[in-house]
Amino acid sequence: MPKISERGLNMPESPIRKLVPFAEKAKSKGVGVIHLNIGQPDIETPQVALDAVKNISMEVIEYSHSAGNESYRKGLAKYYDKISSGITHEDILVTTGGSEALSFGFTACLNLGDEVIIPEPFYANYNGFAEATGVTVVPINSSIESGFALPPIEEFEKNISAKTKAILICNPGNPTGYLYSKEELNQLRDIVKKHDLYLFADEVYREFCYDGKEHHSLLELEGIEDNVIVVDSVSKRYSMCGVRIGAMITRNKAVMSTTLKLAQARLSPPSLGQIASEAALETPPSYFEKVSKEYIERRDILVDGLNEIDGVFCPKPGGAFYAVAQLPVADTDDFCQWMLENFEFEGETVMMAPASGFYSTAGKGKNEVRLAYVLEKDKLKKAVQCLKHGIEAYNNK
Amino acid sequence: MPKISERGLNMPESPIRKLVPFAEKAKSKGVGVIHLNIGQPDIETPQVALDAVKNISMEVIEYSHSAGNESYRKGLAKYYDKISSGITHEDILVTTGGSEALSFGFTACLNLGDEVIIPEPFYANYNGFAEATGVTVVPINSSIESGFALPPIEEFEKNISAKTKAILICNPGNPTGYLYSKEELNQLRDIVKKHDLYLFADEVYREFCYDGKEHHSLLELEGIEDNVIVVDSVSKRYSMCGVRIGAMITRNKAVMSTTLKLAQARLSPPSLGQIASEAALETPPSYFEKVSKEYIERRDILVDGLNEIDGVFCPKPGGAFYAVAQLPVADTDDFCQWMLENFEFEGETVMMAPASGFYSTAGKGKNEVRLAYVLEKDKLKKAVQCLKHGIEAYNNK
Repeated sequence: MPKISERGLNMPESPIRKLVPFAEKAKSKGVGVIHLNIGQPDIETPQVALDAVKNISMEVIEYSHSAGNESYRKGLAKYYDKISSGITHEDILVTTGGSEALSFGFTACLNLGDEVIIPEPFYANYNGFAEATGVTVVPINSSIESGFALPPIEEFEKNISAKTKAILICNPGNPTGYLYSKEELNQLRDIVKKHDLYLFADEVYREFCYDGKEHHSLLELEGIEDNVIVVDSVSKRYSMCGVRIGAMITRNKAVMSTTLKLAQARLSPPSLGQIASEAALETPPSYFEKVSKEYIERRDILVDGLNEIDGVFCPKPGGAFYAVAQLPVADTDDFCQWMLENFEFEGETVMMAPASGFYSTAGKGKNEVRLAYVLEKDKLKKAVQCLKHGIEAYNNK
Repeated sequence: MPKISERGLNMPESPIRKLVPFAEKAKSKGVGVIHLNIGQPDIETPQVALDAVKNISMEVIEYSHSAGNESYRKGLAKYYDKISSGITHEDILVTTGGSEALSFGFTACLNLGDEVIIPEPFYANYNGFAEATGVTVVPINSSIESGFALPPIEEFEKNISAKTKAILICNPGNPTGYLYSKEELNQLRDIVKKHDLYLFADEVYREFCYDGKEHHSLLELEGIEDNVIVVDSVSKRYSMCGVRIGAMITRNKAVMSTTLKLAQARLSPPSLGQIASEAALETPPSYFEKVSKEYIERRDILVDGLNEIDGVFCPKPGGAFYAVAQLPVADTDDFCQWMLENFEFEGETVMMAPASGFYSTAGKGKNEVRLAYVLEKDKLKKAVQCLKHGIEAYNNK
């Protein structure tokens, strides 16, 4: 039998997936599993997007332009122009989810073996994209004590080598929910300018910023227009993860034309998803206000509840819909599995993502978990109670 | 400004795209352009697939399983089981088009720098996938004189090195339309078994086989179950290129589990496209009979018409909807551009794909073009007349 490739063997297992069999076993025993482990929102997709799909009038579902339908890109340009004046549809390439935008970005900008610096903990699939595209991740630790703020810029300086080609942030962050300040982004601007690096930001949670805090996009940064590549997606914005529509936005013409060649090889992004996404641009502001209010309430229930549990520390996130919490246990990989295998409270247990999978440095995050607050408030209240009793039982066993 | 990556710089320009600006110029001068250059069929998508999209009842367009919806994979398993008994949904991974299936296959099976042998001329985007995934294409020439039959197996033997990890065929072929015989597939079976190679087949045109000829899938080959990886797509089968749904089919468990990790990193294939694709499995046989009849008539008009032009030779393809023709000109890159820039017949000109872009060996295919017969019969008749007069005018200029 021919061998699997080395990169295939090295592909990381998702930190979410490895517990799935234990969750299935719990369910088969009749135990209810409250899923705090995944970021699939239960919020309804905007009606305008669903209607657009239901009302398609085409007789042939054709390829779109490889960069995405021009009408959709022009609609997106209006959206991004509000963030940073002067963005046109030629600065936008529609992709199959934010995932493809990042893979394209790595492939177009980084040579095999080049390094990308990423503050950890970070979205675990960045490891997968890096492995698949032959890029090396260099992690820099951000600490739970600071609420996962940008690590000191000297830490970036120390880790920049001849191989360093890019810095990647997620803003607001998955898994941390941390929202970067303008000052932090300015620090990044200065360092990428100094070292002539690409600066990538995954801004798919841009609309989810709370407590009156404002989101700052990399697109606003002046003087590094050719360094900046923004990865975006409609998945979370309009709660339609399944349409698989994202975008890469950059003013760098060489990056855009190279990425277009990658896009042409795979022909086109999904046509039906683009119809939903173009229509979603007309989503009324009331939708986002309602969603934002809902997420703030959910976050407060979860995070405040967690911080009331003895020994638990969870910084309050400024955005997205995730939080990382420190638990009074030595090994959350073991604890999360134990919760599924051995614990129930009022017929239910809680599934969480052990944070170790979001760190690239071995041994980091061993007493942390990532929690997604994408469920109804009542379920979140139950989850907090269940977790409280679970921690007690685990530590007394 | 940071540099573009080497692989980015090396990404090939599509042989179809480079003439697009000349076609646009012709159109802006009021000249009609008959597009024989692209494989976007004008055949209607089956009503059952369109209806499924129009009748969606979901409130949230969620991620699907990373390998594709189980109900869809079970439906597909029934389809493939008819081709090769015993295929189950666990042997199938739903991908974002056939493109992603091939990229996943290369990444999971080939190391950086490993070689894949492909008979040329071949689908030009294979070059793009190879460049993006760090794989080297080793071309073996198939000749127009033989109708693009499988090259002698000794040619494969000669080109197998320590770096060779796979052979890739397209069956029936794009751009050639050649349909491989069972005997040819058996020859490939023997050589991949002998050298422990992967054998990939792009079988997206499986349904398009003419003149009573039968399609033989790699899935039918016995004794090399762990070597075989089939790439498939619904794009052409149901004339719905825009849904971006494909599949990878393999009985090799290690390849499947590795590919699943790649698939998990990108979360899920498009949900709406899967709904259309699952419904399309119920397309009545009459649809395919009608389509097949239509393509045979189109093929005969085009190919017979071409062979009546002085100096033109076009083998009659057994499948797909492309043909490669040899023209009495020295350089079809120049000729195809000239047709768009300088020629019209009764207000129209013809756009073709110069075949050089489908060859990996420099200098090959210079007097060949690829023609797609995806247009109505009347247009194809006009195209033949236009081309006839164009060749005369070009050679008399």
